[in-house]
Amino acid sequence: MSEKILVVGSVAFDDIETRAGKRVEILGGAATYISLAASGLSPVQLVAVVGEDDFPEEHVKLLSSHGVDMSGLERVPGRTFRWSGVYSNDFSTRTTLDTQLGVFASFDPKIPKSHAAANYVMLGNINPELQLAVLDSVEGAPFVTTDTMNLWIDIALDALKAVMRRTDLLVINDEEAFMLTGERQVVRAAERVRAMGPKSVIIKRGEHGAFLFHEEGTFFAPAFPLPEVVDPTGAGDSFAGGLLGYIASVGARDFISLKRGMLYGAAIASATCEAFGVERLAKLTQPEIVDRLTAIRALTALERA
Amino acid sequence: MSEKILVVGSVAFDDIETRAGKRVEILGGAATYISLAASGLSPVQLVAVVGEDDFPEEHVKLLSSHGVDMSGLERVPGRTFRWSGVYSNDFSTRTTLDTQLGVFASFDPKIPKSHAAANYVMLGNINPELQLAVLDSVEGAPFVTTDTMNLWIDIALDALKAVMRRTDLLVINDEEAFMLTGERQVVRAAERVRAMGPKSVIIKRGEHGAFLFHEEGTFFAPAFPLPEVVDPTGAGDSFAGGLLGYIASVGARDFISLKRGMLYGAAIASATCEAFGVERLAKLTQPEIVDRLTAIRALTALERA
Repeated sequence: MSEKILVVGSVAFDDIETRAGKRVEILGGAATYISLAASGLSPVQLVAVVGEDDFPEEHVKLLSSHGVDMSGLERVPGRTFRWSGVYSNDFSTRTTLDTQLGVFASFDPKIPKSHAAANYVMLGNINPELQLAVLDSVEGAPFVTTDTMNLWIDIALDALKAVMRRTDLLVINDEEAFMLTGERQVVRAAERVRAMGPKSVIIKRGEHGAFLFHEEGTFFAPAFPLPEVVDPTGAGDSFAGGLLGYIASVGARDFISLKRGMLYGAAIASATCEAFGVERLAKLTQPEIVDRLTAIRALTALERA
Repeated sequence: MSEKILVVGSVAFDDIETRAGKRVEILGGAATYISLAASGLSPVQLVAVVGEDDFPEEHVKLLSSHGVDMSGLERVPGRTFRWSGVYSNDFSTRTTLDTQLGVFASFDPKIPKSHAAANYVMLGNINPELQLAVLDSVEGAPFVTTDTMNLWIDIALDALKAVMRRTDLLVINDEEAFMLTGERQVVRAAERVRAMGPKSVIIKRGEHGAFLFHEEGTFFAPAFPLPEVVDPTGAGDSFAGGLLGYIASVGARDFISLKRGMLYGAAIASATCEAFGVERLAKLTQPEIVDRLTAIRALTALERA
């Protein structure tokens, strides 16, 4: 029953410093986290670009070994996108130290014929003009999930609005939702976002969980409270990937499937935070996911499960 | 079956400014919010002090009309405790503009004989030496719920630790929990707080809900997402009051009763935020509380209730 998910976004090298330590030039990028998180449940086809000069084959193999179809990974002359950042001690803020777009600056996603019929399209946080081009390249009426960021709200709002009109589910964080709408509370922000097009919107609040605003109601998925956070990089993308993996695996996008998918996403996102980069995510087993899922459900359950 | 709740804390005048407007010299104070919130479900006996010079009888009548036993309200020469504060536009921070302790500076809670047998004691945020004196004045083995604040952690830690050893349930916000323990995550902070004595601890996170850490497990009560916040003053105290009102009404302090009580508290706390001061809280009806409670439960329910 599993349906295919097309993921378009960034594959990158990250330098990350947290109070738990430091890692240099580790595998990162939204498309990486989304694909790894989704791949445990559904077939994933990744479209991204990396530099011929520096991207090692071992990273491609890692993703392939998780069943991610890497035939849409473009290699072009130059260097891979690099991001470097440091988190505050309580993880409430992160500071970008350096961004080197490299080959990502001229990313022009080409959707292979074999990928055009995906039932689910995940538009990672890239220029909305490129997101539109992706939507023009796919066939049929896939379920479109979109991410974005403050930069595009700032400099490409019209294109972003065009993307939103073709989006089924917008997944953004609270600051982005507030910036996009001028509102300061999630309920009103969600109302205004949905008026722009997306049938549903998920507003992520990091360690405080995520809200789904859907025509049938509002749902809240708590984040799992970890005793120790090592590195929250990619948690939001892992959440979106887990959600997509779940709904694609059941082939349903109704309210209850989205809710279940959010809990699945929350389980995987919390695991991502337990180690640097994709270290934990890449080794996560289904029994571990089920255990975490059970713990998250127990958090809000009155009776014992 | 309802058991009595003794509430010891502040009754005050508040000047409050939020983006929704401004109110001057309105009824406030932790004991006021706790008592009003609890009184809908269980009999409450309030012990507090106000100034003879300025405290109007109408406020006493308001509380009495909600069934709060006001015989423990002491009136002494001088002025009532006054607090003045302003909230940031997104309500994420509040700044205290002025505090005038007035008669509260020499508050020496006297527990009337008629109040000494309460089954539940709520120690509001007062000097821990006074909290200890209250505990020495009550009979039997009541269920003790304690609040505190950064000031006491700073200047009266030994007395606070003595209170904690006699506390069943500590209800504090996350910043207080972090300050008290030196931890930066709720799970570890709760472990360390419980090692100091309290059998259970609730860590409040404002608009992000509240965690209960109990020997039988962890529970999370989401805050109800309001379209418009008018004034969050007293929301935390309303939460504690609703929780106590519930557990006293069922006469049980087990894990599931505390969970249910937290949802009750969250429902009342959200209502408190919908108007200035106790305006909404004082008019809240049982059907309104049940409606809000249902909405909060639906937030985390997979299936429709």
